[in-house]
Amino acid sequence: MNRKSGPNVNATPHTPLLDRVRVPADLRTLAESDLPQLASELRLELIDAVSRTGGHLGAGLGVVELTVALHYVFNTPDDRLIWDVGHQAYPHKILTGRRDRIRTLRQEGGLSGFTRRAESEYDPFGAAHSSTSISAGLGMAAARDLSGGRNNVISVIGDGAMSAGMAYEAMNNAGALDARLIVILNDNDMSIAPPTGAMSAYLARLASGKAYVGLRDFGKKLTSYLGKRADRAITRAVEHARGYVTGGTLFEELGFYHIGPIDGHNLEHLIPVLKNVRDNGKGPVLIHVVTQKGKGYAPAEAAADKYHGVNKFDVITGAQAKAPANAPAYTKVFAESLIQEGREDDRIVAVTAAMPGGTGLDLFGEVFPSRTFDVGIAEQHAVTFAAGLATEGYKPFAAIYSTFLQRAYDQVVHDVAIQKLPVRFPIDRAGFVGADGATHCGAFDTTFLASLPGFVVMAAADEAELRHMVRTAASYDDGPIAFRYPRGNGVGVDMPERGSVLEIGKGRVVREGSKVALLSFGTRLQDCLIAAEELGAAGLSTTVADARFAKPLDQDLIRRLARSHEVLVTVEEGAIGGFASHVLQFLAHEGLLESGLKVRPLVLPDDFTDHAKPEKMYADAGLDVAGIVRTVFTALGHTVRAQRA
Amino acid sequence: MNRKSGPNVNATPHTPLLDRVRVPADLRTLAESDLPQLASELRLELIDAVSRTGGHLGAGLGVVELTVALHYVFNTPDDRLIWDVGHQAYPHKILTGRRDRIRTLRQEGGLSGFTRRAESEYDPFGAAHSSTSISAGLGMAAARDLSGGRNNVISVIGDGAMSAGMAYEAMNNAGALDARLIVILNDNDMSIAPPTGAMSAYLARLASGKAYVGLRDFGKKLTSYLGKRADRAITRAVEHARGYVTGGTLFEELGFYHIGPIDGHNLEHLIPVLKNVRDNGKGPVLIHVVTQKGKGYAPAEAAADKYHGVNKFDVITGAQAKAPANAPAYTKVFAESLIQEGREDDRIVAVTAAMPGGTGLDLFGEVFPSRTFDVGIAEQHAVTFAAGLATEGYKPFAAIYSTFLQRAYDQVVHDVAIQKLPVRFPIDRAGFVGADGATHCGAFDTTFLASLPGFVVMAAADEAELRHMVRTAASYDDGPIAFRYPRGNGVGVDMPERGSVLEIGKGRVVREGSKVALLSFGTRLQDCLIAAEELGAAGLSTTVADARFAKPLDQDLIRRLARSHEVLVTVEEGAIGGFASHVLQFLAHEGLLESGLKVRPLVLPDDFTDHAKPEKMYADAGLDVAGIVRTVFTALGHTVRAQRA
Repeated sequence: MNRKSGPNVNATPHTPLLDRVRVPADLRTLAESDLPQLASELRLELIDAVSRTGGHLGAGLGVVELTVALHYVFNTPDDRLIWDVGHQAYPHKILTGRRDRIRTLRQEGGLSGFTRRAESEYDPFGAAHSSTSISAGLGMAAARDLSGGRNNVISVIGDGAMSAGMAYEAMNNAGALDARLIVILNDNDMSIAPPTGAMSAYLARLASGKAYVGLRDFGKKLTSYLGKRADRAITRAVEHARGYVTGGTLFEELGFYHIGPIDGHNLEHLIPVLKNVRDNGKGPVLIHVVTQKGKGYAPAEAAADKYHGVNKFDVITGAQAKAPANAPAYTKVFAESLIQEGREDDRIVAVTAAMPGGTGLDLFGEVFPSRTFDVGIAEQHAVTFAAGLATEGYKPFAAIYSTFLQRAYDQVVHDVAIQKLPVRFPIDRAGFVGADGATHCGAFDTTFLASLPGFVVMAAADEAELRHMVRTAASYDDGPIAFRYPRGNGVGVDMPERGSVLEIGKGRVVREGSKVALLSFGTRLQDCLIAAEELGAAGLSTTVADARFAKPLDQDLIRRLARSHEVLVTVEEGAIGGFASHVLQFLAHEGLLESGLKVRPLVLPDDFTDHAKPEKMYADAGLDVAGIVRTVFTALGHTVRAQRA
Repeated sequence: MNRKSGPNVNATPHTPLLDRVRVPADLRTLAESDLPQLASELRLELIDAVSRTGGHLGAGLGVVELTVALHYVFNTPDDRLIWDVGHQAYPHKILTGRRDRIRTLRQEGGLSGFTRRAESEYDPFGAAHSSTSISAGLGMAAARDLSGGRNNVISVIGDGAMSAGMAYEAMNNAGALDARLIVILNDNDMSIAPPTGAMSAYLARLASGKAYVGLRDFGKKLTSYLGKRADRAITRAVEHARGYVTGGTLFEELGFYHIGPIDGHNLEHLIPVLKNVRDNGKGPVLIHVVTQKGKGYAPAEAAADKYHGVNKFDVITGAQAKAPANAPAYTKVFAESLIQEGREDDRIVAVTAAMPGGTGLDLFGEVFPSRTFDVGIAEQHAVTFAAGLATEGYKPFAAIYSTFLQRAYDQVVHDVAIQKLPVRFPIDRAGFVGADGATHCGAFDTTFLASLPGFVVMAAADEAELRHMVRTAASYDDGPIAFRYPRGNGVGVDMPERGSVLEIGKGRVVREGSKVALLSFGTRLQDCLIAAEELGAAGLSTTVADARFAKPLDQDLIRRLARSHEVLVTVEEGAIGGFASHVLQFLAHEGLLESGLKVRPLVLPDDFTDHAKPEKMYADAGLDVAGIVRTVFTALGHTVRAQRA
């Protein structure tokens, strides 16, 4: 790699107190009065580390004091501390024996950008998708009660994550079980995008005291009923009783004892409250803590996204390094293409589950605000909401990342597929995602969608194909249709002004040959083309085709490739059970596997792949040029391989 | 079939008023004073119909008056009426042009047991799984607002369904969108099993008035603060203000206007409230209606399950016909086997999502109450809660039907599989389910689970195998493990006293042959054995093997079958992408497809199969004896088929 330059020239921060803390037990030897200083040093260390690695910054900055307070008051790891999502857990990692590796965050072989059981005993539950922490914590609490243990279980969850139904299911169950569980609601009024949903508005009212308006109004009403005579006394009584009556929050209705809101950056407030809960808690308790995302780092505080996820940056100026881009990002191509189609057809509407920026629907929303719906972190609802729109003749594009769509699988099956409703599913982050690792790797969407009757499943080979698929989906009204595309930038092909409507279930031959056929589904097409050159140079005339559709299959194309070639390799960036399985099933029933055809399906490895550089991931998976060439040579036997050497 | 006898000898009820109502427009011509009589006749008709067909009875009986009131007040089908789950919609079907077919309910070619778009314009959204109606309704409301329409959208949802996160997600979004949407909370304090969860307790408090206790306490507190002098005045003031202040319910915090609780069997209460909401509504409103499941039919009211789902029965006595059983139900075998294992190992715990009876965990719960967790209709939470238990060394069995497990797919991937946690998944209702139809057909579980790295996926060929698999799962600690088994009764094999621990990834040869190999995964094994007899009689020596595992595959077995037979047919009761795909992928990479082996993967058809008799469904799918034999003959060419004739 190149010499380091630009952003990463800052000196390592001076952290004398933090240097004495390797694990939380060290932290607990400090005086309470030392903790603000420790928090300050922890913040500097965090900023420095992320300036070198890139990653999630704003969320970690917001919980520096909370992290210190939790490890100071609770006896981790015996007390179980679960960070929801886990992208705010970098300060936690620094305090729990991982400081020496904190500058390897999200690098291959380095620390994960999320919590992870395999990484530390201080991570009792791994995360990355949101809203799982209360369920996991309740399971641990139930286990503790069964075994007669006495340890604490603490789940820290953001206000954005509280819009997911899963969090509600867990709260509802916790209230009923009445197990001793501590939920810390980290309310920074900001998940990734600005918050949406009634719960968010409710929390804002709580935090601002406006939820008490009902009580104040009641006081007024009571005053007017009683007349002037009791006016002053009642006003004072209402003030006096507020703390009591406002206990009746939504959380208390669900069986939680509710404390807060309290200032999450004030250790003098946090520590007594946490100690009190630790020593006196009975059933489930929710502590509502208000924090500021990006707290304590001026560039983050000033940024609209509070430095949610950043590239490497200069600590002094906050200027982020930019990765060189030779081609537009797929996300942007999707957004621009959808805007084009949206101008042509006002029935096109867009649905996102709290990812307007990540999916590109923020751009669509700027042009068509009334036709854009951000439903919050609520994928289940997003899909069925889209289905409802479809029943009324609208054309919903429910843009959900591949792995997040897993959250809505039953809704896809039950509400969309069985009813044959024309909901469009643009699936971003399909395939490997690099630094975000296994939890975000879009491996399974082709498998779990193409098995559904009546579904159309496409994959874009490049950014121009993506544009065609947006138009195709916009024009297709006969049932559900999905199209997948990867994280990152396109390959730099010429872009058409507007997409064309693709014929459903028809692929295309990109390069003609006679001995070997490479049949690609999605973005591995480029590597297939280079592999074909190499194979050709080795005397193996090679056809390359872009299947475009996993469902319906282009049966004519597959039949032709099978009949006229000696080797057929399918290539896809997806797990077993997807495109290749449909091809094999078809070939088997056609009797086309009996002629000696050497068929080799290349899919993602049967393993959850750790974070690394994408190129490394493709190579390890055998889905790069070398892997494709190797597969062909192996299929044809060693003699051919020898010719190449 | 046999002559009809026993229960179905009742005369058709006398229904002069109902006879005048073919569609809701007819209903609206009646005087309001006629409606109680109409409701009474509708109830008789419902009881008679279900006595002849079997099906869901209790839920429909509970909403007879509500159904009449809704169609009387609202202008269906222009006003959209969405029944959550849809099993309570039989009275709705009778009033919306389907009375003439109501005695075909759940019969092949007859009416569905749920709402269904294809069946009637009065069913704007199909259902069967719970908690989808608010999302769908909100989508329709958003569509109406975009297009400038003025129709009403009404979602009717039960209190049990409100424990699902999806309902909360939709409420949260509805509150934020502030669209005009009417949600009717049908609170019968009973979904299928007795209710669980804090929400249920909260609703009970609302219905009993006890939710107002906070206000009363506030009044007391205020009184004590002000002293005796204002005592009486304040008491009256509190009474006066109650209706005002108690508006601050959980639903109102989520942005809904909240009305109720009101008596759902009193048309004089229902109709004015519905008219008022129809004529004056602005944003989202929730009407809390209290009903009684099984209302108006004494045997149902007296039964513990309120006749939730019944067989054909005698109207006078309520006695249900029983299907003859030659073998124990799989559900019961599972339950008894788990109890056996539970006695041996106190770390075994059980988790159900509101289906204790359906999964058999009610039996486990009787023996081990503290080790049994019913988390409510909350599959997402159920799975991650189980994952939390597993992190603490417990052995959770999360028993969820195949199609309901779709609700928790991301939790299975993200919280269980990626973390390699040993959560056990007993999967009941895998494969065809007969009268419950497509929405409950367990088609996809093998596909969506076996694609996950590190998952063990088994299928039981018979009830003895199921017992082995329960023990195998109990003893397996290395990661997640699932075992699927069908709805209905076993095949009558001898049952072992206790299950054996199966070797992971090993199948078994059940019958040795030399030309044809039938490789079964799951319950089609019996048909394979009969097919083998037929093939043998036709001169085709046939091996039959039970794969037991879709993952990991028994590679030795498959290799052997492929090498030593001319035809290999895989047979499974699951969609494409499952067992057969794993077999084909393995054979391809081993080069075993190139020797002329005729491989034929039999899977469920690429279609959502309507409700019918199971035997008919197997025949149509080609998964019965005839289908298997036909596949082999076709693979071998017509000459062989001719030999048979």
